Amino acid sequence: MANSTGIQALVFDVFGTVVDWRSGVAREAQAFLNRHAPGLDPFEFADAWRREYSPAMEEVRSGRRPYVRLDVLHRENLVKVLNRLGITGIPEAQIDALNLAWHRLDPWPDAVEALYRLKQRFIIAPLSNGNIRLMVDIAKRADLPWDAILGAEVVRAYKPSPQVYSETVEILGLEPAELCLVAAHNGDLAAARRLGLSTAFVARPTEHGAHQTTDLKAEQAWDFVVDDLLQLAGQLGCTR
Amino acid sequence: MANSTGIQALVFDVFGTVVDWRSGVAREAQAFLNRHAPGLDPFEFADAWRREYSPAMEEVRSGRRPYVRLDVLHRENLVKVLNRLGITGIPEAQIDALNLAWHRLDPWPDAVEALYRLKQRFIIAPLSNGNIRLMVDIAKRADLPWDAILGAEVVRAYKPSPQVYSETVEILGLEPAELCLVAAHNGDLAAARRLGLSTAFVARPTEHGAHQTTDLKAEQAWDFVVDDLLQLAGQLGCTR
Repeated sequence: MANSTGIQALVFDVFGTVVDWRSGVAREAQAFLNRHAPGLDPFEFADAWRREYSPAMEEVRSGRRPYVRLDVLHRENLVKVLNRLGITGIPEAQIDALNLAWHRLDPWPDAVEALYRLKQRFIIAPLSNGNIRLMVDIAKRADLPWDAILGAEVVRAYKPSPQVYSETVEILGLEPAELCLVAAHNGDLAAARRLGLSTAFVARPTEHGAHQTTDLKAEQAWDFVVDDLLQLAGQLGCTR
Repeated sequence: MANSTGIQALVFDVFGTVVDWRSGVAREAQAFLNRHAPGLDPFEFADAWRREYSPAMEEVRSGRRPYVRLDVLHRENLVKVLNRLGITGIPEAQIDALNLAWHRLDPWPDAVEALYRLKQRFIIAPLSNGNIRLMVDIAKRADLPWDAILGAEVVRAYKPSPQVYSETVEILGLEPAELCLVAAHNGDLAAARRLGLSTAFVARPTEHGAHQTTDLKAEQAWDFVVDDLLQLAGQLGCTR
């Protein structure tokens, strides 16, 4: 039934698609901010930290910098944001601890049950820019039953660089269309489609908070367009 | 309690340590041999195929050949063995199908329960020379609850090359001694110990059949020496 689509494996964007990074980072930063920057909105802090994410990876994608794992970029970005906010003189160990905020993110409410259903018929794995240890820590804490941890660190490149998708297809021994990327971001899906992957858009209209303006809906006719991952599981024949 | 040892993650050799490759390959080859080489003992066939394993990887370890995944080496080795046995004219698709024997191996009886217990306290992952898809297929069929698939393909090198162990330590963000290699092979453990990893020897005295002569016992004072993985789980405080 699932294989009327020919899909054999599903790979997932994680930050925003499977887990709610913004609430998680805000929660994890709250105590630190109370101490060092009372009055600063932890959600604004999470947004500021996240704004450094794509530019930092772009250094690697452009070839200006060799691959380094996301934990390293997150920490550099954190130091940058703290400096900009005038939060200085923080012991290294406290910065390290705060950087682990990204390892303790909660899944969206539909994610865990949907992944368990999908795992019965498909290989499921993250295809995240997060590094392996980061993905493992999130998964163990949140009970995400991945079959493998794929993504940036395995291929040593960052999405949306094309080799992340094409090498993952090769690692899984599949034809491109047999692999489906599941993501809340049209740009990620567009890059996957250019390599021939199947595509599933899941709407996460509050990833960036109540006033989100991007990725509110599918911008192409993706193979699947769903409101949450349980709906995707249903459309793929994984109803229980 | 587990952390009186300081160990945070356990990585496992798979062929021989977690799964019984010899019985599985023999079983999977039986029908093929009945058709093409009646009278040939499928266990002898499995042994002949396996004898090509280490020399094929040695081409990569020595630098004479760039990394190719184990599925490719297994298939080349299979063709070599079939030719030697005078089994010729086999359609490519049948060779491909037989090569998947390695994807359908059964775990030793203690393995699944032990991995579930160990997973509660430790990150657990294969550190096999098998490629990612091969490990995923074995795990899904056998219900091995890995947290990630590490090993040769992630670092693009074959054990016992030192970078397999050292890069895995780095990927997991650990000190070497916080990572324990679990293996039924003294040579694998010796290579891991040279890089500072913790070590656990599990006896698998019938991996090579009833007349096995190698790896019958621990050849160094490994950190743990056990008769099966449930015993290891017990010694690491994972009794349920």
